[in-house]
Amino acid sequence: MRALELLPLTAVGFAPFGDVIDTAVACERYPINEGRTQRHHALSKLDCESQDGCTALSVFRATPVDNNFLLQGLERHPLSSQSFIPLSPYPYAVVVAPAGSLQEDAISGFLAQPGQSITYRKGTWHHYLLALRAPSDFVVVDRVGPGENCDEQVLVEPLSLIL
Amino acid sequence: MRALELLPLTAVGFAPFGDVIDTAVACERYPINEGRTQRHHALSKLDCESQDGCTALSVFRATPVDNNFLLQGLERHPLSSQSFIPLSPYPYAVVVAPAGSLQEDAISGFLAQPGQSITYRKGTWHHYLLALRAPSDFVVVDRVGPGENCDEQVLVEPLSLIL
Repeated sequence: MRALELLPLTAVGFAPFGDVIDTAVACERYPINEGRTQRHHALSKLDCESQDGCTALSVFRATPVDNNFLLQGLERHPLSSQSFIPLSPYPYAVVVAPAGSLQEDAISGFLAQPGQSITYRKGTWHHYLLALRAPSDFVVVDRVGPGENCDEQVLVEPLSLIL
Repeated sequence: MRALELLPLTAVGFAPFGDVIDTAVACERYPINEGRTQRHHALSKLDCESQDGCTALSVFRATPVDNNFLLQGLERHPLSSQSFIPLSPYPYAVVVAPAGSLQEDAISGFLAQPGQSITYRKGTWHHYLLALRAPSDFVVVDRVGPGENCDEQVLVEPLSLIL
């Protein structure tokens, strides 16, 4: 059984898979609203409207996993990006592999802190939402519309998480 | 000086202006991810890609206002919706007026709780972000692209908030 180590989530480490959205990420920053607000601008450009799709906000309420949980498969969205914005003050796990044919030995794991949002780029393989510690809510930005937008693939070798 | 009372934020009360995104709002709900997650589906459909626009995620870090703060004007985005997703555990104020010619006697105020996100519909008049109590971060979903997408109008009679 392979056990996956979770690396700290950084924009540089996550760049092959998508975007990290937090105030530590290098970006254009400028004051707005009479100087009362600092805008960290366009940390992630979304891609949810191909083939008559619409960008929508949903809420996911997730049950946490523990270190007995086995990851059995990954999924990808061939038509759109998908973003997760954590509302709860708990970390969560992010497990990904590069787009294209799924290479199980290229699976990476990251530990996202509260306040860190992510966007999976179109086609990035990823495990479904992995809340940790406590039931956790997320606002999810993804595509609503016609067409098949979720490919799933079972792993030859299930994975556990080192938590 | 007119003082604006803040009503509890509900989807029904906010419907003339946009959407409330939280788990209390009536919507299609269904289990996903092997039953580990409940999806509250498509609580807000966004509208950010007109005229070569792109939907993007930014982070706004806002300084709080207090009950000495005077609201001097409102703004609207004629080309797009704009959504605010609070990352911080503090309430915030939402001040709006219907789209069309600004009617100052139709200005409404709402108190949003942590965990409540909102979308201003395209053209809805609104005050800029009004954090309360403490510096607060928000993920903002809005339009990046060409064209003038912010109209501002000064109020004839400034407003205070009853906090």
